[in-house]
Amino acid sequence: MLPPALDRLIERLARLPGVGEKTAMRYALYLVTADAAYVAELGDELRTLPERVRPCSRCGFLADVTAGGATAGGALCRICRDPHRDATVLCVVARVQDVIAFERSGAMRGRYFVLQKLLSPLDGVGPEDLPLDELAKRLREDGVREVVVATPPTVDGEATALLLGRELRGLGVKVSRIASGVPHGGDLEFADQITLGRALEGRRPIE
Amino acid sequence: MLPPALDRLIERLARLPGVGEKTAMRYALYLVTADAAYVAELGDELRTLPERVRPCSRCGFLADVTAGGATAGGALCRICRDPHRDATVLCVVARVQDVIAFERSGAMRGRYFVLQKLLSPLDGVGPEDLPLDELAKRLREDGVREVVVATPPTVDGEATALLLGRELRGLGVKVSRIASGVPHGGDLEFADQITLGRALEGRRPIE
Repeated sequence: MLPPALDRLIERLARLPGVGEKTAMRYALYLVTADAAYVAELGDELRTLPERVRPCSRCGFLADVTAGGATAGGALCRICRDPHRDATVLCVVARVQDVIAFERSGAMRGRYFVLQKLLSPLDGVGPEDLPLDELAKRLREDGVREVVVATPPTVDGEATALLLGRELRGLGVKVSRIASGVPHGGDLEFADQITLGRALEGRRPIE
Repeated sequence: MLPPALDRLIERLARLPGVGEKTAMRYALYLVTADAAYVAELGDELRTLPERVRPCSRCGFLADVTAGGATAGGALCRICRDPHRDATVLCVVARVQDVIAFERSGAMRGRYFVLQKLLSPLDGVGPEDLPLDELAKRLREDGVREVVVATPPTVDGEATALLLGRELRGLGVKVSRIASGVPHGGDLEFADQITLGRALEGRRPIE
């Protein structure tokens, strides 16, 4: 019933995360009546996105290919290009989104290493699928002294943290794990048992 | 912190209906790591959308510009080009989405007229902003005998229906209004007062 161009657009929009056919149609009907210049710009941004933005060749965060600073190995992200970062502290995270979260907090002065995946036996992701060799190489090359394992406090995240702890132990670096407990502003009443257990376990003296 | 190309993409995605900055970032991060061919196709579809899909010059539904059947006045939609439709019955709806809903139900054999807006004094939409002249022209040209007013049973939709009833009365056509009542599968217990009132008011003899 709809023009084929619109059907194709809906089908492609429905591949976005969390978007079903109904939402895709809503977006498509908005776009078909929206300002033509805006729609064309959005189309151009998407067309050129893969040429402009690539994973940072050093840490896996997002690098602006057009911004310069590209080495023989590929483009570097803004954080890896920043000389004021403490290269001796390396924060290991699961996803690009986690880097964004830490950068928003302003609490991490070191650099990052994005695993892109977590250990997940059920999904068939084993230790051999994690970039452990690249991580070890990075530790050597950058003279890293402390690795902060900031994988999420989930089953897969904890398993990955344990694995990293074991693998990195022999490499002469301090390996730490981010704290898990009741979040800021959280209510003890609604905290789950594991979170409360961890909050107690990780208690620190009040100075 | 993000590459400028990604920031621009996020800003544009955030203009989609119901999409805030967080969702736009989620989409953008998905797209930046998605299959490059898919992203390029999506970009192309968007770029060419305004050239390919336009409002039908006769009814306001969506017309495929490339499908032929374009008259001097512009492209016609699939429904207006279908000779098997009953041209004497015209269903007046508020939005393109409503045509899609009726077409899915398969219950409307006539054609449509999309108002594109409803009477809405609070938003400054008065009778002069509705395409009443175009509608009257359509009734004459197509030999319409019955107009089914299918604006939604909301304050604006009812006001528009009343206005259409008054305006079309002198034109020698039958004007009807879609039924309002308890929806199929609906629970009387949870139906609001107005819906129940309408369900009673619109009761029909059981044959």
